[in-house]
Amino acid sequence: MKHLSIQWSEKGHLVLLNQTKLPQVIEYVECFTVEDVAEAIQTMVIRGAPAIGAAGAFGMVLAAKQGINLTKAKHILDNARPTAVNLSWATSKLLSCDSLDSMLKAAQTLCEDDIRCNKAIGRYGASLLPLECSVIHHCNTGHLATVGYGTALGVIYSAIEEGKRVHVYVDETRPRMQGARLTAWELMESGVPMHLICDGAAASLMREGKVHAVLFGADRVAMNGDVANKIGTYGLCLAARANNVPTYAAVPLSTIDPEMKDGTGIIIEQRSPEEVSSVCGIPVAPQGVPVYNPAFDVTPNHLISAIITERGICYPPYKESLSKALSNNL
Amino acid sequence: MKHLSIQWSEKGHLVLLNQTKLPQVIEYVECFTVEDVAEAIQTMVIRGAPAIGAAGAFGMVLAAKQGINLTKAKHILDNARPTAVNLSWATSKLLSCDSLDSMLKAAQTLCEDDIRCNKAIGRYGASLLPLECSVIHHCNTGHLATVGYGTALGVIYSAIEEGKRVHVYVDETRPRMQGARLTAWELMESGVPMHLICDGAAASLMREGKVHAVLFGADRVAMNGDVANKIGTYGLCLAARANNVPTYAAVPLSTIDPEMKDGTGIIIEQRSPEEVSSVCGIPVAPQGVPVYNPAFDVTPNHLISAIITERGICYPPYKESLSKALSNNL
Repeated sequence: MKHLSIQWSEKGHLVLLNQTKLPQVIEYVECFTVEDVAEAIQTMVIRGAPAIGAAGAFGMVLAAKQGINLTKAKHILDNARPTAVNLSWATSKLLSCDSLDSMLKAAQTLCEDDIRCNKAIGRYGASLLPLECSVIHHCNTGHLATVGYGTALGVIYSAIEEGKRVHVYVDETRPRMQGARLTAWELMESGVPMHLICDGAAASLMREGKVHAVLFGADRVAMNGDVANKIGTYGLCLAARANNVPTYAAVPLSTIDPEMKDGTGIIIEQRSPEEVSSVCGIPVAPQGVPVYNPAFDVTPNHLISAIITERGICYPPYKESLSKALSNNL
Repeated sequence: MKHLSIQWSEKGHLVLLNQTKLPQVIEYVECFTVEDVAEAIQTMVIRGAPAIGAAGAFGMVLAAKQGINLTKAKHILDNARPTAVNLSWATSKLLSCDSLDSMLKAAQTLCEDDIRCNKAIGRYGASLLPLECSVIHHCNTGHLATVGYGTALGVIYSAIEEGKRVHVYVDETRPRMQGARLTAWELMESGVPMHLICDGAAASLMREGKVHAVLFGADRVAMNGDVANKIGTYGLCLAARANNVPTYAAVPLSTIDPEMKDGTGIIIEQRSPEEVSSVCGIPVAPQGVPVYNPAFDVTPNHLISAIITERGICYPPYKESLSKALSNNL
């Protein structure tokens, strides 16, 4: 892991790897204020539910240093991206601290916990993969999407560490190309065998019997097991179900929203038309084309074979298993 | 229709609209030899099953003018793109002509027939759409994909001419972006209300109840109704079925392959990695990334609600209805 997605500098500010420029350019963005952090989250300099949770925590630290009202700071950060619940989970944690010192410590603990969580998720998830398999992976859930190691990609890394032979079909994940730009890069740097595919190619791969599991992370999981994740996840899960391929969401418990009974209440972020009408600044559609660009979709619980957490694997009915996981009783 | 996809010049050569550069650049490519035509088909200067059929016919005329053995010319043309059957259908027609004059006439008749076919397909298909509806359209099937008017887009044009209010969600259709570059352009030029979407957004739109039909063309239809079409069609049809949205393939009878019992025998063209690893020449993935890039997939007949032809609408069981359509007995 040569490039860390998120680091707290010794000089007291936040340093983020600019994920909008990867893999062609390695560039770091320095954040000195809560507004800097909110902008970095909104523009996807940092992305991935666990990673933006950690960024949000350090954003609260910066707000405290600025002397900004922390409730206001939390509001600014939480609204940078509305779908991932990890953000408000992290800012809430920081809001309950009683000093700048304890805030910084809480943010740093949150980062350490994230890596520990991911490794536990990886170990549990690896048990679900056959000794030799090909999996489809959607979006990016690796060390870039987290503080380190990764959730769904962590499962793949763990399985390989255990000696399993895993090949990955990487969904490019339009519009932001997190699969092509980030996951392909991570896997190639780690020497994991992979092929990049267009999102539209996933279903026929499964029909041809070439896929043994579908893996992804999540931005918010409702208590009934409905999963909000990167746009395209729902269609991928439908194709998996039609072809008897299991689907696994790998998430830290901080992604589970105890306030959300089911997926109907999850706010889906709409993003700018330019993400679709151009690619890396190059127009790919007529000027002024109307665009519908939801960043996420909701996959209903009946299409999810299992939800992998740091406390173990949750199976349907999720209402029971997720409650047990949250109360450390799985 | 300001820009014709294919024209026979008065000077005796073929003029093709360069569809690889649309919509940013309007450029025509002149073909003087059968090799020019094969290259234009292979590089997708011209694409769309009916349009490459017409181009193939004129390619045979050019071969005759060059004095090239016509069986050899047919082989060169048919192999430019293996999946669409219209190409070999058209070159076979030309092979049976007995003079240059009759070949040119046959090619021109084939073009006139294509436009007439499309208008008939449009009229039949329009009857399937509600008075007010939103449809998802995959790839490009409009006047650019044909000699004129279009197949699945022709259905939309016909419905609108009849006074129906049709809104189109345009799948961008990675990797070649025919939806973003060509369909969006055609619809905007025609004033048809539309939104461009990423391919991955189609399923959630259907789950939200925002879509009343899914429309597409085909590159080859087997006698049992299995449909080979642009990659992504199969996943789209799975999502449609799961959400009770009807799926319609709009095709001239020349797309139906009487030699093909079912979809298992259809050759799926694999295209270059660069189509996926870069967009309009801009790299979007790490250098040297391994890519799996099938141009088409096969949708099994049970996911196709109806196949619209110029002789009427074929319903399951397709073995019967397609046979009847081919024998002019629908």
